[in-house]
Amino acid sequence: MDFSIIRIARTVLHVVDLEVSRKFYVDGLGMIETESDENHIYLRGLEEHSHHSLLLKKAAKAVVEVLSYKVEKEKDLDEIEKLFISKGLKTKWMEKGKQHAMGRTLRVHDISGIPLEFFAEMTTVDRMLQRYDLYHGAKIQRIDHVNCAVPHVQTAYDFYVKELGFLCSEYTDTEDGNLWAAWLYRKPTVHDQAFMNGPGPKLHHFAYTLTDRLSVLDCCDVLASMGYANSIERGPGRHGLSNAFFLYLRDPDGHRIELYTGDYLTSDPDLKPKRWDLNDPLRQTFWGHKAPDQWFNETSTFIDIETGEEIESKEPFLEQRKPKIMA
Amino acid sequence: MDFSIIRIARTVLHVVDLEVSRKFYVDGLGMIETESDENHIYLRGLEEHSHHSLLLKKAAKAVVEVLSYKVEKEKDLDEIEKLFISKGLKTKWMEKGKQHAMGRTLRVHDISGIPLEFFAEMTTVDRMLQRYDLYHGAKIQRIDHVNCAVPHVQTAYDFYVKELGFLCSEYTDTEDGNLWAAWLYRKPTVHDQAFMNGPGPKLHHFAYTLTDRLSVLDCCDVLASMGYANSIERGPGRHGLSNAFFLYLRDPDGHRIELYTGDYLTSDPDLKPKRWDLNDPLRQTFWGHKAPDQWFNETSTFIDIETGEEIESKEPFLEQRKPKIMA
Amino acid sequence: MDFSIIRIARTVLHVVDLEVSRKFYVDGLGMIETESDENHIYLRGLEEHSHHSLLLKKAAKAVVEVLSYKVEKEKDLDEIEKLFISKGLKTKWMEKGKQHAMGRTLRVHDISGIPLEFFAEMTTVDRMLQRYDLYHGAKIQRIDHVNCAVPHVQTAYDFYVKELGFLCSEYTDTEDGNLWAAWLYRKPTVHDQAFMNGPGPKLHHFAYTLTDRLSVLDCCDVLASMGYANSIERGPGRHGLSNAFFLYLRDPDGHRIELYTGDYLTSDPDLKPKRWDLNDPLRQTFWGHKAPDQWFNETSTFIDIETGEEIESKEPFLEQRKPKIMA
Amino acid sequence: MDFSIIRIARTVLHVVDLEVSRKFYVDGLGMIETESDENHIYLRGLEEHSHHSLLLKKAAKAVVEVLSYKVEKEKDLDEIEKLFISKGLKTKWMEKGKQHAMGRTLRVHDISGIPLEFFAEMTTVDRMLQRYDLYHGAKIQRIDHVNCAVPHVQTAYDFYVKELGFLCSEYTDTEDGNLWAAWLYRKPTVHDQAFMNGPGPKLHHFAYTLTDRLSVLDCCDVLASMGYANSIERGPGRHGLSNAFFLYLRDPDGHRIELYTGDYLTSDPDLKPKRWDLNDPLRQTFWGHKAPDQWFNETSTFIDIETGEEIESKEPFLEQRKPKIMA
Ligand SMILES: [Ca+2]
Ligand SMILES: [Fe+2]
Ligand SMILES: [Fe+2]
Ligand SMILES: [Fe+2]
Ligand SMILES: [Fe+2]
Repeated sequence: MDFSIIRIARTVLHVVDLEVSRKFYVDGLGMIETESDENHIYLRGLEEHSHHSLLLKKAAKAVVEVLSYKVEKEKDLDEIEKLFISKGLKTKWMEKGKQHAMGRTLRVHDISGIPLEFFAEMTTVDRMLQRYDLYHGAKIQRIDHVNCAVPHVQTAYDFYVKELGFLCSEYTDTEDGNLWAAWLYRKPTVHDQAFMNGPGPKLHHFAYTLTDRLSVLDCCDVLASMGYANSIERGPGRHGLSNAFFLYLRDPDGHRIELYTGDYLTSDPDLKPKRWDLNDPLRQTFWGHKAPDQWFNETSTFIDIETGEEIESKEPFLEQRKPKIMA
Repeated sequence: MDFSIIRIARTVLHVVDLEVSRKFYVDGLGMIETESDENHIYLRGLEEHSHHSLLLKKAAKAVVEVLSYKVEKEKDLDEIEKLFISKGLKTKWMEKGKQHAMGRTLRVHDISGIPLEFFAEMTTVDRMLQRYDLYHGAKIQRIDHVNCAVPHVQTAYDFYVKELGFLCSEYTDTEDGNLWAAWLYRKPTVHDQAFMNGPGPKLHHFAYTLTDRLSVLDCCDVLASMGYANSIERGPGRHGLSNAFFLYLRDPDGHRIELYTGDYLTSDPDLKPKRWDLNDPLRQTFWGHKAPDQWFNETSTFIDIETGEEIESKEPFLEQRKPKIMA
Repeated sequence: MDFSIIRIARTVLHVVDLEVSRKFYVDGLGMIETESDENHIYLRGLEEHSHHSLLLKKAAKAVVEVLSYKVEKEKDLDEIEKLFISKGLKTKWMEKGKQHAMGRTLRVHDISGIPLEFFAEMTTVDRMLQRYDLYHGAKIQRIDHVNCAVPHVQTAYDFYVKELGFLCSEYTDTEDGNLWAAWLYRKPTVHDQAFMNGPGPKLHHFAYTLTDRLSVLDCCDVLASMGYANSIERGPGRHGLSNAFFLYLRDPDGHRIELYTGDYLTSDPDLKPKRWDLNDPLRQTFWGHKAPDQWFNETSTFIDIETGEEIESKEPFLEQRKPKIMA
Repeated sequence: MDFSIIRIARTVLHVVDLEVSRKFYVDGLGMIETESDENHIYLRGLEEHSHHSLLLKKAAKAVVEVLSYKVEKEKDLDEIEKLFISKGLKTKWMEKGKQHAMGRTLRVHDISGIPLEFFAEMTTVDRMLQRYDLYHGAKIQRIDHVNCAVPHVQTAYDFYVKELGFLCSEYTDTEDGNLWAAWLYRKPTVHDQAFMNGPGPKLHHFAYTLTDRLSVLDCCDVLASMGYANSIERGPGRHGLSNAFFLYLRDPDGHRIELYTGDYLTSDPDLKPKRWDLNDPLRQTFWGHKAPDQWFNETSTFIDIETGEEIESKEPFLEQRKPKIMA
């Protein structure tokens, strides 16, 4: 392929009350508010030099507008457009400045129907990495990955690996050898994008990297002291898969965010994808804890890049079992 | 009263296989094995200068022989004997040396039937506090407290506070003002002894203090990598009551051990006991997590100081509800 | 003796600019400001239920007014007065309310000339222990100890141990068996009061307990990001003596504050004082780091309880050597 | 350029006593010993799936044999050979198997005379990432970077950036705009290779990534308890440059190793190199600590890839000042 995707770069979420969201993300999680107006809040982590990695838009209903990937250079966008057109997938351009702080952007639906966006340019800002006086809550560092439920993981996997140039770090098979879930990356961490078998396309969660495990624990304490104990959905714990230390939260609109720290470098071409059996109890939670039912069953809905209508969910190819989907 | 109890000092447990126990407590939790023979293992934490704080005895059945309190001076034992006799409670002397590494010891049953032991003298050994090369697993520091289920908490509370000189740091009331649980101390931490409403007398758990929260997380990782994921019963999490960061484990015999860090100093006479309502969701777990059923329902059985027979359990005075008993 | 001292309870410091002090102690170190007026700031740690443990008074010169000990009950004060009078030491009463938030207080000079204060009653306030949303900076928990340079450590030791009922946890001897430094306690930690050989009486430092080592590191980051890198005088490091993890800071007036975490329980009567040789390199800093000269040579001056004049310094009994004084 | 360097991959050190080295690296630092014979020890971090990242060779004198870079594919080696030949630099092939566990390897001297090695293939082994039962000491995760003193940093910079495809994350200028030091990367972290102005070519240090700051502190405690306090040369502290939390150690042969954690992702093409002024006090140590003289003055000597003779040191282009070289 003649383009290079750098990394997952932002999530655009619709939320019903910006003040309520600000309290959760800024006061609770410690994200930096780069900018805002009456209909938008632009948020980033302490390490990020990009204008934002999370855009919250005020809307009547809490849905997911798009997941954004940064590419190496402007002309990659044209190559990516060609690919999506050649596959018969919907595409749409948004010229530079159409979206605040963003260069020219290509919106598409991927092979599973997920609304994606590609861009080479976003306004840059100062990293707050050494403004320790501003650290609080979870001290969120940077966007790490997104995780989507799709009806047919093998199809998504093939598209991302063969067409978009992703690599696989770890994956889960059923006993019959069907691909249940896959962790795919462009930046050399465990993933930028995970797919899990389930009704979809749906956003299961988006995730931010923290500096260390204590930031995760501190976040639980801070959230609980602010009255957000109910937002803590699963964890803290250690994933078998990826080895990351994790916490899953539900934001005030029900969108799921994962705090994540401690995976590993995947830079090497000779690093073989690690296979997990669907029934391996250590895969999801290395310490043996079970995830609550709602973690399996509740996801966020995507909307169409043109109509803005909610994308209908299809039943998964593989029979849903618990664990149906995983971290 | 004319005696002074210093602190909870040891637990004597019966276990069915010493090798299995050693692997869990020494290799897994990082306790120091002071000494052992074919029927006993004497264990202590890294900070402890007493010969042991946990005695494991090989036996046919996993029960709890006795909970031991250290007193200030030898003659305190005689005063304590008088008190128990005056209350019509069973007492029994074990002369110095009868128990390895122990001075003269007074065994009794307390007002709820719990087998207790008082001693002023135990062989002292070197603290391993600065032998960081030996630190591993949970890096257990020192014994912190024991927690017992009793049928009538108010009776146990009155006996420990009015007769034995304990103070109360925190307690839980039902909506009707009945005492549901109490945290009592002699050393100025949140507790040496907790009582909770439940079928009893039973040992709910014994607890060790760790240096910090990461030692708790490290312990989960080490136990899981050794195949002990199933031993992790509840947590890690933050208690509302006591503020401690905790983890509950079940040892290979089913005895429950709590890893505990981060409570507070209770030295001041003007520190008022903190009241919690039984229905306050933050009391048990500040982060809102629920404890699993087995944490409420499974406890260890005590044996009689004379006959060695298992002590029968009585139904609790207050109707059992979930949370029936708490951390 | 017929009284019981509970613990070190506060330090009263004179500072030249309250705004400057507030920025350091509240914004930088994360202390809670209980109350203030134009001439006073009353500060406490997150765990403390006493009104304050640090009183900053606006003054022309940065000196130390008094070190305060909390006693068990009101009448202990009268017994302590008798003792000091019997020793020919200066005493002075301050009636309840004379000092804001304080009950009746006895001020004295100790055997080395240090201005001390004893009280049984201070206004109580809510602990902020679980207000994690307010945690920042060093997340200071509670006052731990004070450390004074005195010309004759043996004299100070004898007075505190034999007359005031302190116990010794650790001490340093010269090769000739002269007492160089001593760590003395009432609450069962390593110390409430340390004495070191040096020109005195002087306050070398006062110290606060933190929850864990990362709070110390976080504090360095926060202070540096606020422009306080020059306030970091020594550490972070591990003390050999006491085993605590430490950091020494100089406040804007030059008073030295130690952040301290990780010593051990000293509740047991059979715990023998630990001897260190003055020349043992691990004693001061377990990791072998040397303290800077100013740490040895700079101290805060006390003032007279009656005249308010600076107390003159006497040359130490033992020849000053580096390490002349220690942690 | 027609090749792709992946990352720094190993250091080959000569040491005089393998047993002494093993105690330091395996028992002290917690590295995994993949394999050894009477003349070699092959070591790796807990995360590494490559056979080793540190090769210790028994020799009469403690020098540095070579620094090794992993390339994407076998034929990259031929392209790199062409480049070095075209620049008139010495090259030498070592066929597959000539070095244990290594594929075909190209050895060269770089523009400053540093002996480098390129390879595409090294035997792979199991990651020990989740063998937490084996974690101890510093719990070293993976090789992070090497840092060399060279007489002319601008020359080295130009060669690595223009000829080898490295990118610059941060750099230090003198007040006259001369390049004093540069941090260069291939994998998207702050660096694989740093250059500092100084007599050279010399290896200043090689560095390993740890999981978190507490692993650094734990390492200090473990080393001190093993008698290695003298091996702790500088830190722990926070670098201004790179933001990493660091510790510098000297191994038993005097080679310097840095423990390093907490830098940031450098994946983005629009990330501009960060300039530091040589006189900025926060650059070296964010907390203001000064490095000891020996940190500036002592380095390890390289040997010639053909003759094995020690490479002579040249005086630096820029006048040596303190800080002459930096982290
Ligand atoms: Ca950490
Ligand atoms: Fe995830
Ligand atoms: Fe407990
Ligand atoms: Fe101190
Ligand atoms: Fe470095």
